[in-house]
Amino acid sequence: MSAAAGTVHGVGLGPGSADLMSVRADRLVRGARHIAYFRKAGKAGQARRIVEGMLRADVVEFPMDYPVTTEIPLDDPRYAATLAAFYEDCATHLRALAQGGEDVVVLAEGDPFFYGSFMHLHTRLSPHVPVRVVPGIPGMAAAWAASGEPITWGDDVLTVAPATLPEAELARRIADTDALVVMKIGQNLDRLKRAVAAAGKTAVLVEYAAMPEQRVRPLDAVERAPYFSIALIHGAGRRP
Amino acid sequence: MSAAAGTVHGVGLGPGSADLMSVRADRLVRGARHIAYFRKAGKAGQARRIVEGMLRADVVEFPMDYPVTTEIPLDDPRYAATLAAFYEDCATHLRALAQGGEDVVVLAEGDPFFYGSFMHLHTRLSPHVPVRVVPGIPGMAAAWAASGEPITWGDDVLTVAPATLPEAELARRIADTDALVVMKIGQNLDRLKRAVAAAGKTAVLVEYAAMPEQRVRPLDAVERAPYFSIALIHGAGRRP
Repeated sequence: MSAAAGTVHGVGLGPGSADLMSVRADRLVRGARHIAYFRKAGKAGQARRIVEGMLRADVVEFPMDYPVTTEIPLDDPRYAATLAAFYEDCATHLRALAQGGEDVVVLAEGDPFFYGSFMHLHTRLSPHVPVRVVPGIPGMAAAWAASGEPITWGDDVLTVAPATLPEAELARRIADTDALVVMKIGQNLDRLKRAVAAAGKTAVLVEYAAMPEQRVRPLDAVERAPYFSIALIHGAGRRP
Repeated sequence: MSAAAGTVHGVGLGPGSADLMSVRADRLVRGARHIAYFRKAGKAGQARRIVEGMLRADVVEFPMDYPVTTEIPLDDPRYAATLAAFYEDCATHLRALAQGGEDVVVLAEGDPFFYGSFMHLHTRLSPHVPVRVVPGIPGMAAAWAASGEPITWGDDVLTVAPATLPEAELARRIADTDALVVMKIGQNLDRLKRAVAAAGKTAVLVEYAAMPEQRVRPLDAVERAPYFSIALIHGAGRRP
């Protein structure tokens, strides 16, 4: 690593409203000469949308278009191989920028180390160039704010689970926790509804938390969940 | 509720560094004529410390001094009664301010709806005056950023548990999760160390995440955990 290497900043943008990014993230985004962000091919991308209007006039953008999303099943070895090659390519580009002395801001929705794709760059870059992470407000925090009720009280246990888990395991975990957050709902909505019912509980679904389309409904009332949706069961712990 | 009622803002300050509060929180804090915050009697208080240097010259401060912390056991009915009376008093004061047309910013460390004391005001105030919540970066997000490793990957399940749980239950939950966050360590450090060992795992302890005294060590190496400490076990899920 050269002494003059630039830094790759993995910057958490928070849940989707520009004023919910941290002051540190705001400064880094506004000052960046180089930004990079993931997006679905052919789409503007949510991360890029959040920073619209904040960028330098001379900013250089590096969009990273996912080569696959749902076309190949997750358990198909081609899925991992295709994504690994994609992350390698992206990391190679960012590493070259940093080794050339440039700082780069990688935009990350929510928090960079809480699920999400930045982590796959982080593992590939951090052995070679300086990488710094700016934490962000995770989408779930905006979801429970939107719900109007605290998520955890006193000694409550919180479980965060993806709806991609097998239905029986999902039901077991829902029964075994005080408070619950479920992400990655999309195609798994019906499975999640059955698992919540099997656990004898009720949940709310928060769609587009902290975005203009924000909506909160009982999970049972929902027929179709957008990608930006999070299910919640609120804890009921000690409350003097 | 009068049409001219002010709003009580529960503002998440994030993990402890002023530039990790959101842009929205920053604006509310800097513009506030009235602020309120919890603190241990006789101490400056962490929430107040975070906003030092940001307040209006004519700000009116309402410190809320906890009447008890560890002097009365949590399961003693006097604990709940004493705290309930305290929260009632605080809420009465804030409600009067709002009903008199004043906006009030209640400073909340981390995120206002994720554990913490603001929730006890929220339940008492929201039937009577407008209450708005600004989510914040939870302390745990700064802790995993400090650890230098992502907390959750792919379909990892994350469990957030207080170290106050019975040791056997703590061990069971640690064994049954991919990624783990443990809060409220303090006096429960030895119990936590035993529970992590019983689950056959290893953890790191992050002290003072995002603060100048930040330190990350293997949990086993720690003899005494300060109040601001969080234990982590990182997930090991899918990573193409």
